[in-house]
Amino acid sequence: MVNTLLLPELREMLSENNGDDLKEFCSAMNAGRTAEFMEGLSDAEAWQVLRHAELPRRAEIFGHFSHQRQVSILSQHDPSEIAELLEEMASDDRVDLLQELSDNRVGEILPLLPLADRRDIQRLYSYPEGTAGSLMTTEVAKLDEKLSVRQAFEALSEQSEQFETIYYLFIVGEHDQLRGVVSARQLVTALRTPDKPLSELVQTDVVTALTTEYQESVAEKVEKFNLLAIPVVDEARHLVGIITHDDIIDVVRQELNADAQQMAAISPLDNDLLRVGLMTLSWKRGIWLAILFFTALLTAFALRYYESEFTRASWLAWFIPLIISSGGNSGSQSATLVITAMTSGSLKLSNWRLVIGRELLVSVMLGGFVAFFGLVVALLVAPSRTEAFIIPVTLFFVVMSGCICGASLPMMFKKLGLDPALMSNPFVAAIVDILGIFIYLNVARLLTR
Amino acid sequence: MVNTLLLPELREMLSENNGDDLKEFCSAMNAGRTAEFMEGLSDAEAWQVLRHAELPRRAEIFGHFSHQRQVSILSQHDPSEIAELLEEMASDDRVDLLQELSDNRVGEILPLLPLADRRDIQRLYSYPEGTAGSLMTTEVAKLDEKLSVRQAFEALSEQSEQFETIYYLFIVGEHDQLRGVVSARQLVTALRTPDKPLSELVQTDVVTALTTEYQESVAEKVEKFNLLAIPVVDEARHLVGIITHDDIIDVVRQELNADAQQMAAISPLDNDLLRVGLMTLSWKRGIWLAILFFTALLTAFALRYYESEFTRASWLAWFIPLIISSGGNSGSQSATLVITAMTSGSLKLSNWRLVIGRELLVSVMLGGFVAFFGLVVALLVAPSRTEAFIIPVTLFFVVMSGCICGASLPMMFKKLGLDPALMSNPFVAAIVDILGIFIYLNVARLLTR
Repeated sequence: MVNTLLLPELREMLSENNGDDLKEFCSAMNAGRTAEFMEGLSDAEAWQVLRHAELPRRAEIFGHFSHQRQVSILSQHDPSEIAELLEEMASDDRVDLLQELSDNRVGEILPLLPLADRRDIQRLYSYPEGTAGSLMTTEVAKLDEKLSVRQAFEALSEQSEQFETIYYLFIVGEHDQLRGVVSARQLVTALRTPDKPLSELVQTDVVTALTTEYQESVAEKVEKFNLLAIPVVDEARHLVGIITHDDIIDVVRQELNADAQQMAAISPLDNDLLRVGLMTLSWKRGIWLAILFFTALLTAFALRYYESEFTRASWLAWFIPLIISSGGNSGSQSATLVITAMTSGSLKLSNWRLVIGRELLVSVMLGGFVAFFGLVVALLVAPSRTEAFIIPVTLFFVVMSGCICGASLPMMFKKLGLDPALMSNPFVAAIVDILGIFIYLNVARLLTR
Repeated sequence: MVNTLLLPELREMLSENNGDDLKEFCSAMNAGRTAEFMEGLSDAEAWQVLRHAELPRRAEIFGHFSHQRQVSILSQHDPSEIAELLEEMASDDRVDLLQELSDNRVGEILPLLPLADRRDIQRLYSYPEGTAGSLMTTEVAKLDEKLSVRQAFEALSEQSEQFETIYYLFIVGEHDQLRGVVSARQLVTALRTPDKPLSELVQTDVVTALTTEYQESVAEKVEKFNLLAIPVVDEARHLVGIITHDDIIDVVRQELNADAQQMAAISPLDNDLLRVGLMTLSWKRGIWLAILFFTALLTAFALRYYESEFTRASWLAWFIPLIISSGGNSGSQSATLVITAMTSGSLKLSNWRLVIGRELLVSVMLGGFVAFFGLVVALLVAPSRTEAFIIPVTLFFVVMSGCICGASLPMMFKKLGLDPALMSNPFVAAIVDILGIFIYLNVARLLTR
């Protein structure tokens, strides 16, 4: 829902060029809420309002705009004002945005930034997408281990103007080499002994991420150790940045969405659906459709092989889609359950016997359930009672094999060191389709012999 | 991977009953890492080691054990020691665990807890699952608005012994009514004016969650405003607890897994796969298999209706599974893309025209691609060239209708106020199956007339 409550007032202030009121609007509420009230404005209007906020505040509100609005503002207005804004932004966020602007536009803006910021941007650019380096922000509060507790408080009160939140107090030695952390709690308690050096308080066992580490592995650490932020270090253990909890939520979302796409036989997209190029999208889907096409082709050969069966009893053909979809559906249920349980960490490979055992029991129940409906329908349609039994017996075994394939194939993939989500639901379904036809026609032969 | 590095040493210390070394082991590293080194021990051994840690530390390490191990320990050992442990734990975590113990066991442990903890547990019990109340922890650092900056620091240094992390400094009035927050940064800066009362620093515009609010809505606020923790208030705005960022990651995971399950036609599970009862699991899957069975039954009627077509050209039957699976696969690709984009917030309903437009273009490409393969295969099999064209033409239209149904049905569900993930992939596939058969046989009629 777009919040339209203050739109008329905002537009009035804009048309009257009422700077004082606009400034007041920008500072009265927290930044997120301010951005929310501006959602109904056009991107250009939003920028006009924002220009009345003081610079740090401006960047803060801007950070709460939608990604689309951010890109639109950056690509349109006065380069020097944009550079001012970028200077205030978190280093990881601004690099993400700059990557979406045209090279021309970046060329206009970059030279207007101070050298230090330019270097920082180039450094972050150089880390491959999906690594800790590309995810981190370089603004991190550091304290020298030689400082005393009192000096640390002074340094903090200076740094705190610069950083919105200080998650942990990282203690560094020479050349910013990470020595450890001191918790805010320790520091506050240590106020009683203000001359103690930090090096005596420091906790040296810190969970860190390497700049080259994959974001999934970083997210796993943050979740496992319940961290607010994780320090990012290079090979020589120099503290180069931190990754904060809000970025981790994004990583988890990305990862689960990629799994969902993989399960639906789409090579995971790197970008939002509406921002992926159509050719890329077609390719990422087409390649899998082609693979599945050739798997499905096997069903055509199977049916051709069993042709004589269908000429003898043509009613059998009516049930082909029903039978293969029952197998496919139960298979993709099992595959999804096993894959989501594995990626969320609640299912370990060592439990495979338990999973298959439970799946067997469930599949007997589900198979029986579906077979019962099948029997009712088949009795109405089949030429004889014996022949009617072909349908429920087939359904029973097809559902069972769907469940077992669906549960075991992703675990086998995982065991082989592959992504279990690769054993996508349609792929499981394709295998179960072929199995289904074999089961169907063999049951038919047995029961009508 | 289980970390087995220290297992021999730990077992030796246990057998020698070497209390000093075990105590040292428990305090040498951070709690998460300590728990990691204990993974290879049996649950009983782990408890024996843990008993050597000091109490607050013990609870901290225990918090990093797997859920399974936690439940196993709580349900087995001396109730009074367990009560001691529970006293130290975060209030939300211990309620979650107590809910998994037998009533008998809870009856043994609860009376050993101090009255305040018992009341607290009962209060949390009373919030329905999935609401902010059931997710929050009641341990929250509060500062009275009447305190001066100096007094606040003193109060903090007392409270900080009690709380592991102080996320925000919540300022309360009478009866813990929430007045606002003061950021750590403001407080540190305000050290220069130590006699200023907090009420002059307080920022009153705070994002809060109601105890009765659904967890998804809470997670949305936390993500939108990048919060470390969100205060939970009752109807009268009394501060009753906080929900912290790590709980929010769990909510996001739960939500996305529920979507994935829904998309695979499973009513979302409330629990880990291996902990759901088999009857519940069978029911949550069976109900959807039954619904899909009856949808698929329509394909049987359709095929029966078109029977004459198949007697005339029996080779057409061979391609039924191939055609319907091509439609189903492209449909579930589209549905998954649209559903994941909607739940992650990157796609708004107002963009539906753009989505459908893009989908049309993609579907033409994908349809053409699959049709090409179909043509090659059909030329090898079909009795005549004209008849061979039945296959590619059908595939083209089937893939197109799969894409369009897959993209539009979830958006229609969303528009109707229903969960778009309900328009599950198999459901889309079932609709496309029937469409596919109609397209197939009508194309066949047209081309062979």
